[in-house]
Amino acid sequence: MSSKKPWEGRFAAPTDQTLEDFSESLSFDRRLYPQDIAQSLAHCEMLIRQGIIEEDIGRRIMETLKEIREELDAGTFPFDSAWEDIHMAIEARLIEKMGPAGGALHTARSRNDQVATDLRLYVKEEIGEFRGLLSDLMAAFIEKAKEHIDLIFPGLTHLQHAQAVRFSHHLMAYVEMFHRDEERLRDALKRVDLCPLGSGALAGTTFPIDRVFVAEKLGFRDVTRNSMDAVSDRDFVVEFLSALSLIMVHLSRFAEDLILWNSTYWHLIELPDTLATGSSMMPQKKNPDGAELIRGKSGRVFGHLMALLVVLKGLPMTYNRDLQEDKEPLFDAVDTVRSSLRMAALLVKGLKPLLEEMEKAVRQGYLQATDLADYLVRKGKPFREAHGIVGKLVSYALASGKDLAEMSFEEMKRFSPDFEDDVSEVLSVERGVDQRNEIGMTGRESVLAHIAYAEEHYLKSKEE
Amino acid sequence: MSSKKPWEGRFAAPTDQTLEDFSESLSFDRRLYPQDIAQSLAHCEMLIRQGIIEEDIGRRIMETLKEIREELDAGTFPFDSAWEDIHMAIEARLIEKMGPAGGALHTARSRNDQVATDLRLYVKEEIGEFRGLLSDLMAAFIEKAKEHIDLIFPGLTHLQHAQAVRFSHHLMAYVEMFHRDEERLRDALKRVDLCPLGSGALAGTTFPIDRVFVAEKLGFRDVTRNSMDAVSDRDFVVEFLSALSLIMVHLSRFAEDLILWNSTYWHLIELPDTLATGSSMMPQKKNPDGAELIRGKSGRVFGHLMALLVVLKGLPMTYNRDLQEDKEPLFDAVDTVRSSLRMAALLVKGLKPLLEEMEKAVRQGYLQATDLADYLVRKGKPFREAHGIVGKLVSYALASGKDLAEMSFEEMKRFSPDFEDDVSEVLSVERGVDQRNEIGMTGRESVLAHIAYAEEHYLKSKEE
Amino acid sequence: MSSKKPWEGRFAAPTDQTLEDFSESLSFDRRLYPQDIAQSLAHCEMLIRQGIIEEDIGRRIMETLKEIREELDAGTFPFDSAWEDIHMAIEARLIEKMGPAGGALHTARSRNDQVATDLRLYVKEEIGEFRGLLSDLMAAFIEKAKEHIDLIFPGLTHLQHAQAVRFSHHLMAYVEMFHRDEERLRDALKRVDLCPLGSGALAGTTFPIDRVFVAEKLGFRDVTRNSMDAVSDRDFVVEFLSALSLIMVHLSRFAEDLILWNSTYWHLIELPDTLATGSSMMPQKKNPDGAELIRGKSGRVFGHLMALLVVLKGLPMTYNRDLQEDKEPLFDAVDTVRSSLRMAALLVKGLKPLLEEMEKAVRQGYLQATDLADYLVRKGKPFREAHGIVGKLVSYALASGKDLAEMSFEEMKRFSPDFEDDVSEVLSVERGVDQRNEIGMTGRESVLAHIAYAEEHYLKSKEE
Amino acid sequence: MSSKKPWEGRFAAPTDQTLEDFSESLSFDRRLYPQDIAQSLAHCEMLIRQGIIEEDIGRRIMETLKEIREELDAGTFPFDSAWEDIHMAIEARLIEKMGPAGGALHTARSRNDQVATDLRLYVKEEIGEFRGLLSDLMAAFIEKAKEHIDLIFPGLTHLQHAQAVRFSHHLMAYVEMFHRDEERLRDALKRVDLCPLGSGALAGTTFPIDRVFVAEKLGFRDVTRNSMDAVSDRDFVVEFLSALSLIMVHLSRFAEDLILWNSTYWHLIELPDTLATGSSMMPQKKNPDGAELIRGKSGRVFGHLMALLVVLKGLPMTYNRDLQEDKEPLFDAVDTVRSSLRMAALLVKGLKPLLEEMEKAVRQGYLQATDLADYLVRKGKPFREAHGIVGKLVSYALASGKDLAEMSFEEMKRFSPDFEDDVSEVLSVERGVDQRNEIGMTGRESVLAHIAYAEEHYLKSKEE
Repeated sequence: MSSKKPWEGRFAAPTDQTLEDFSESLSFDRRLYPQDIAQSLAHCEMLIRQGIIEEDIGRRIMETLKEIREELDAGTFPFDSAWEDIHMAIEARLIEKMGPAGGALHTARSRNDQVATDLRLYVKEEIGEFRGLLSDLMAAFIEKAKEHIDLIFPGLTHLQHAQAVRFSHHLMAYVEMFHRDEERLRDALKRVDLCPLGSGALAGTTFPIDRVFVAEKLGFRDVTRNSMDAVSDRDFVVEFLSALSLIMVHLSRFAEDLILWNSTYWHLIELPDTLATGSSMMPQKKNPDGAELIRGKSGRVFGHLMALLVVLKGLPMTYNRDLQEDKEPLFDAVDTVRSSLRMAALLVKGLKPLLEEMEKAVRQGYLQATDLADYLVRKGKPFREAHGIVGKLVSYALASGKDLAEMSFEEMKRFSPDFEDDVSEVLSVERGVDQRNEIGMTGRESVLAHIAYAEEHYLKSKEE
Repeated sequence: MSSKKPWEGRFAAPTDQTLEDFSESLSFDRRLYPQDIAQSLAHCEMLIRQGIIEEDIGRRIMETLKEIREELDAGTFPFDSAWEDIHMAIEARLIEKMGPAGGALHTARSRNDQVATDLRLYVKEEIGEFRGLLSDLMAAFIEKAKEHIDLIFPGLTHLQHAQAVRFSHHLMAYVEMFHRDEERLRDALKRVDLCPLGSGALAGTTFPIDRVFVAEKLGFRDVTRNSMDAVSDRDFVVEFLSALSLIMVHLSRFAEDLILWNSTYWHLIELPDTLATGSSMMPQKKNPDGAELIRGKSGRVFGHLMALLVVLKGLPMTYNRDLQEDKEPLFDAVDTVRSSLRMAALLVKGLKPLLEEMEKAVRQGYLQATDLADYLVRKGKPFREAHGIVGKLVSYALASGKDLAEMSFEEMKRFSPDFEDDVSEVLSVERGVDQRNEIGMTGRESVLAHIAYAEEHYLKSKEE
Repeated sequence: MSSKKPWEGRFAAPTDQTLEDFSESLSFDRRLYPQDIAQSLAHCEMLIRQGIIEEDIGRRIMETLKEIREELDAGTFPFDSAWEDIHMAIEARLIEKMGPAGGALHTARSRNDQVATDLRLYVKEEIGEFRGLLSDLMAAFIEKAKEHIDLIFPGLTHLQHAQAVRFSHHLMAYVEMFHRDEERLRDALKRVDLCPLGSGALAGTTFPIDRVFVAEKLGFRDVTRNSMDAVSDRDFVVEFLSALSLIMVHLSRFAEDLILWNSTYWHLIELPDTLATGSSMMPQKKNPDGAELIRGKSGRVFGHLMALLVVLKGLPMTYNRDLQEDKEPLFDAVDTVRSSLRMAALLVKGLKPLLEEMEKAVRQGYLQATDLADYLVRKGKPFREAHGIVGKLVSYALASGKDLAEMSFEEMKRFSPDFEDDVSEVLSVERGVDQRNEIGMTGRESVLAHIAYAEEHYLKSKEE
Repeated sequence: MSSKKPWEGRFAAPTDQTLEDFSESLSFDRRLYPQDIAQSLAHCEMLIRQGIIEEDIGRRIMETLKEIREELDAGTFPFDSAWEDIHMAIEARLIEKMGPAGGALHTARSRNDQVATDLRLYVKEEIGEFRGLLSDLMAAFIEKAKEHIDLIFPGLTHLQHAQAVRFSHHLMAYVEMFHRDEERLRDALKRVDLCPLGSGALAGTTFPIDRVFVAEKLGFRDVTRNSMDAVSDRDFVVEFLSALSLIMVHLSRFAEDLILWNSTYWHLIELPDTLATGSSMMPQKKNPDGAELIRGKSGRVFGHLMALLVVLKGLPMTYNRDLQEDKEPLFDAVDTVRSSLRMAALLVKGLKPLLEEMEKAVRQGYLQATDLADYLVRKGKPFREAHGIVGKLVSYALASGKDLAEMSFEEMKRFSPDFEDDVSEVLSVERGVDQRNEIGMTGRESVLAHIAYAEEHYLKSKEE
C-alpha cells in the first residue's frame, strides 16, 4: 500500500514499500496526537485571526479537528498504515471529513516545526508528571524515616561496617538525591518551554503569522528565536534523558541497598510477600525481583541517552530525517523511569526493618573506633597519632576475638595512657550517633531537622 | 489479575499488580516460543530416555506441546497476562490441556537454564539470517561495481578532493567492511553454539540427565561447562550486539556517502523516485530519507550495546533478575539492523551515477598532484623535496585559476628543471588511476581481481 | 616503595606494590591542590574558632599550608609516589615541615568529605571558565554574522537545497545552541555550589564544627544536608559532563557544516592557511583538520559521561573506592571541551565566505518553490493543492533543465491559471528571504533583532 | 613554535599555534615508535628490492633508522613539540641525521597507511599480551579451586541463598568467562593481522611496490584488499575494545563477589593486609579497594568503546582526521585492563576462605529445598506439585524458626504422605551437592573434570 503522500506532486513513481515501512513513525508517534491536535487548533485560530485563511474554513477545520480528537480518544480513528506519521494521518482524516479546504490547515507550517512543537509539549507534560512521581517517592522515604526515626544500624563505606547511623538518616540520603532530580527537571523545563511553531521548514514563512499568540495559547513561556536552530534542536530531549539517567542512577543505588538488606546474609529487612517473587525450581526462594529489575533498567535509560547523543553528533544544519530517531528512546525512557519510580515507592512503603537483626549488626565491625580516636584527640593527641593508636587497639581486639565494648580498661590503657574512665561513654554506639548533631549529620536533632526541611521545601515544590 | 504463579507454595499473599506489570516479560519474550517449544520437546524426550519421567506421560506432553505450537503459529493461543513470561504461559497451557501430569515437564529444569537455552537458539538463528543479509548486500555492491567498472571520480580524504579513483573501487571498500562483519558473526557463533540446558537454577540437578543428547537434538555443537556461569552468561548477546554495532557503523558511513553524493552541491548520483521522499512544505524537495534513517539508527544500536554492558556490570553470581533486561535491546537491535541492511541493499541497487557530473568532478581539486610528485621522484628528487615543489606549483595554479592540465610546460619548468616532455602523461587523471595496479589499489586490474576474489570468497561463506 | 600510610595502625603488613600502583591517584589528582589547600585553610580556621584545636598549632598549620602552596605553585614540592593522593601528600608534607602537631589538621574531617569538597570547588571554577568560553564563542559568531548580515545562501534540509536564508541567520543558529549551553551550566552550578565538608566519612563528626562558616569562607552558597549522600554524591559531575556533551554535540554540528562548506564540491568558504593543514603525500591538500578533530572529540566526551554513569550504577551506600574513577573522565572532558571551544572560536573568526560561490549556489535547487506555493495560497488555493501544483512545475523544470526564474509566464500558466503577472516577484530569492520577518525568521529585520537580543542577553550573562 | 611541516609547499602562512596544540598527537602516539621504525625498515628494504630507491641511500636510511631506535630506546631522542606526531618526528630526525636523501623513505607511502600499519602492529602485540594475562588469571583461579576442591558454600541467585555448591565450582565459573575472552581475542586477531601498507593516502601508489614482501617481513598473515577501506578501517580497534569491555564485565562481577564475600556481614573470606587499604578517619577499616577500583574501571573501558563508535559513526570515505581520536581511548583501555587483570590475579591468589564461616552459611537459607522437591518427584509427584508442597514446608519452617534438617519426620509427613525414612539423606547439604555430577555441575567429579579440561584446553591456548 503506497499512496497518499502529501508531497507527491514532484514524484513520478510511488514510494517503495520497504522504504515506507522503514520510514514510518505512525506506529509510535501516535502517542503525540493530543499535542498535535492542540497545536493545530491554536495554529488554525491564529491563521483566522491574522486573516491568512478564511474564517468559515478555519472554523470548520477547528470543529473537525475536535471531532477527530474524539475519534482518537475513543479508539475509533481509522488508522491506515499508508500514512507515515500521526501528523499526516490527522491531516488526511481532516481532508477526508471536510474536503480539500482542510488542506488550508498546513498553511504557514511545516512538519519540521510541527513535530518540534508536539515534542516540546509532550516533554513539558512529562516533566510535570515526573516531578509529581519524585515527590511521591520522597514522601514515601520521609514517612518511613519518621516511622523509624531512632533505629540505629551500621553505616557502611566500601561495604564494610564503618560508623553507626540512624536508619532514618540513610533513608533521607535518597530524599536528597531525588530532590536534586526534581530540581534538575525544573531547570530543564525552562529550555523546553519555548514554542518553535512558525519556524517553518527552516526559514520561517512568508505569511504574516503571530507566533506569540500561538505560544501563549499553548501555554509556552516564550517563542524560540532562530528558525534554523528551532527545527533541528533536540537538546531538550537530551537534557531530559540526562535527568532521567540520574534518576535511574539513584534508583539503582537504592535497589542495590535493598537487595543487600534483603539478602540471606544481611537479613535486615523483610519484604511483604506481595512485593517478592519465587523460583520455578527452588521452592524456598523469595526474591527481590522488583529491585533487581529497577537496577537492570538503568542500563536501558543510559543507552537511550547515548543513542540520542549519537544521532545528533555531527548532524549538519538543519532538519535531517535522523531526528525521527529521537522518539522511541524518549518514549521508552519515560515508560521505564515512570514504572521504576512507582515500583520504588511501593518497595519503600513495603519494606519492614528487622529490629533485632539491626541491633545485632550494630555490635559488629568496631563501629566506635572513630569516636575512640576523637576521644584521644580531645585528650590532646594530634588526630593522626590518635588514629594510629586505635588502629593498633582494633588489631588486638580482632586477634582476641573481642568487641571494643568488651575490652577491659587495663587492656585499653596498654595502648595509650590517655584512656581514662570516661572512655566507657565513647564505647556506646548509640551515644556516638547522637553526638553528631550539626547540619546534615546523623544525630536525632539533625535528622529531625532534615526531615522538617525536606517536608517544607522538597515536597511542596511540585505545587509551584 | 494476580494468580497462577508456579512458585506460590511459600507465599502467603498474591503478588502486587504493580510488581506483576513491572516484571512481566510475556509482552516481548513471546517471540521466543518456537525456541521454547523446541527445547521442551528435546528435554522431554531426554527425560523419557533416561527414565526420569514415565514414557506415556512424556509422550502426552510432547503431543500436547506440538498442539500448543500450532496454536501459537495460528495465533489462537489464549494469551493471559497473568503469566509472567512465555515459558510459564506454555507450561500453564500444557497443564490446562493435559492435567497436572504436565507439571512433570519442568523436572530437572529451571527457568534460568531454560531462558538461557531459548536465547542461544534465537541468537544462533539470527546470526544465520544476518550472514545471509550481509551476503545479499555485498552482492548488490559487487553488481553495481561491475556495472560501472571503469567510472572514475574523485577519491576524498578530509572531504577534500584527493586522488582520482574508480567508483567501483569505492563501492568495493564497503564490501570489505561487510565481509568483516560476516566473518565476525561467524566467529561469534562459536560462543553462542553451546547448550546450557541442565545447568538448572545454578548448580545442575540431582536427576540423571543426558545433556549431550539434548544439545545434539537442538543442533548445538557442544554443552556449556559450568552451571553457575551458564545461567548468568550473556556474553553472547553482548558480542552479537557489538557485531551489530559495527554493521551500523559501516551502514552509517555508506549512508553518509550516499547523502553527500545525492546533495544538491555534489549531485553525483540520482535516486529513483521510489527511494526518496518529499517535503510537506517545500514542493521541490526529494530527500534521501532512507539513508538518513540508517545513519540515525546507528545510535539506537550503540545504545542497546551500552545498555547491556551496564546491566551486566558488577552483577554478582549467579542469576539476577536484571538479566531479563537483555531481551528488549537485543530484539530491537535485530529488527533495526535487519531493516537497515535491507534498506541499504535497495539503495545500492537503485542509485544511478550521473556520468557527466562525475566527469566534471574529476577536473576539480588537482587530483594529479601526487602523481606529479612521484614523477619528480622518478627523476631523482627525494620524495619530500618533490612534494614541496608540487605544493608550490599548486599554489601558483590556484592563484592563476588554472587546472594543472591547463598549465604550460614553461610554467611548470619554472618550479623544477626536472619537468620534461613526458610530464603530460602524468597529467592524465585516468592514466594515473590505472597505474595503481598492485593488490588492493584502484587500477582496473586490481579492482577486477578484488571483485573476483570477493565473489569467490565472501559470497560463498553464507553457504557453509 | 610502600610506606607512609596514614592508616597503617591496624595493618600488620605493608601494601603490595601492585595495589599501590593500581590505586594511586596522585598522578592525576594533583590538579586539585589549589582547592585542597584552600579547603584546609578554611577548615583549620574553623577548628581554631571552635576551640577544637589550639590556636597556636592552628596558626602554624595555616602558615605551613601557605608555604606548601608556594612550593606547589613553584613546582618545588617534593612529590613522592609513596603518597597515594594529593591530600595525603600535602598532609605528609605538613607534618614533615612542622612535626606531628600537623596531624591535628585532619581532626573532624575524612578524605571522603575532603575529596568531595575539592571536587565541587574545581567544578565550580570550571563552570565559570566555560561560561566565559561560551560567551567568547558566541561573540565570534555574532561578529561574523554582523559582518555578513546581508549575505544570502541556500538553507538546507536533508543536505538538499531547501530555501534561501541569510548566512548570518545560519550563524546565529549556533548562538542559540551555545546560549542554551551557557544557561544549562548556570543551572548546574546551583547543585555544585554546596559544601559537603563536615560530612566526615559518612556520618558527620562528634566535634562541634561550624559547617556554615567553612562553606562561606570557601564561597559556597550553602551546605549539603545529608552526610551519607554528601560523601557519595557525584551527580554534579554527571550533570557537568552532560552539559559538556551537549556542547560537543553543538560543536560537532558546526564542525560538520564547516567541513562541508570547505569541501571541494561546496567551496563556500575559505579557511586561512594558518587554520588548515596539509597532507604528507598529496601536495595540493588543504584540510580542515581543526574541525574534523572537534567532530571526532565529541565521542570522547560522550564516552566519559557514559563512564561515570556506569561507575555510579548500583553503587551501594555510601563511599566506595569506585568513586575515584570520577576524576580522569572529568579532567579529560574539561581539557577536551576547553580546547575545542577555543579552536571553534578561531575557526569562526578565520572563515571567509566566498561571495561569488554563494551567489551561484542560490541559483540551484529551486529555492523559491515554497514561496510559489504560498503565492497560490494567497490566490485562494488550499495549501495542499498549491503544493501539488508547484511540485509538478518543478518536475517539468527539472526535465527541461531550467531554473524556475527562467521559465516563461506561459509555461507556468499551464500548471495553474492562478499564476499572474505578479508571480515574477516571488521568483526573486532575495525578496523571499526578506519577507520572512517575524520573530526568529531569516528576514533582515528579524536577524538584526536576534543579534541585538543576543548581544544584550546572552553575552552579558557571564558577568552576572 | 610553528614550523617544519612536511607539507608546507602549498601554504603561504605557518599553522596557528592553537591548531598545532589541538592537533598534535606526539604526546601520546610516541608509544608507537617501535612499530613505526619496524615498518619503515621493512618498507625501505622493499623500496630497495624493487629498485624504487637507490640501494646506498636505502641502506643509509635503514642504518640511521636503527640509530634512531636506539635513541628512542635510551630516551635520548630529541623530542620537539614542533613535530605533530611520532611519524613526522622520526622522519625529521632521519633527515637531520643523514640529509635530504632521507626524504626518500616516504616514497610510495602516506601517513594514512603508515598510521594504520603501526596501529595494527600495536594491537596485534597487545592481543598477544592479553591472552597471556588471561591465561595467568585462569591459572590463579584453577590453583585456588584445586586447593579448596571440597569446600561447600551457598550458591546464590538474586543474592539469596539458593543451593549449596562447591566454592571451587564458583571459582571455575570465572575460568569459563575468561576463557571466552581469550578465545574472542584469538578470533579478533584474524582481522587485525592484515597489512595495510601500500594503500597510500587512499588509492595506492604509482610505484611498483611489493606489498606481500612488506607484510611478511612484518609478520602479518596477509595484506588488506581495498586501499580506500584500509586507510579508514578502525574496526579492529572497536572489536578489541569490545573484547576488553567484556573482560571488564567479568572482572567487575568477580570484584563484586569479592567485595560481598569480604563484607562485614558475609565475612566469608579474608584478604591479606597487603591487599587491603585503610581509612583516613576510621581506624578499624580494612577495605577491598583493589576490587572496588576494578569494578569502577569497567565504566572507563565501556566509555572508550562508546567513544570510538561515536567517532566512526557517519564518517565519510576515506581518511578523516577524526580518526586520530582512536589512540587515546585504545591506549588507556589497554593500560586499564592490563592493570585490572594483574590486580585480579593477585586478589585471587591472596584471598583466604574462612572455613567456619562458610560452614555456618551453609546452614542458612533452606538450601536443600530443591532436592526435597526432586525427592517427591521420584516418589511420583509431578514436579509442579512437589514444588508447591516444599514451598509450604518452608513457610512452616520459617514460621517456626527451624532449619529443614531440624524438622521431625512427623512434621514433614503433615505436608505429604510421600515423605518416608529415606528423606533424611536428602536433608544433607553435602550429599545433595555430590549428586550433581553430570557435565558442568557442582559435584566432585564434575568439578574435577572441568578443572582437568580447563588445564588442558584453556591454559595451553596461549602457546599456539
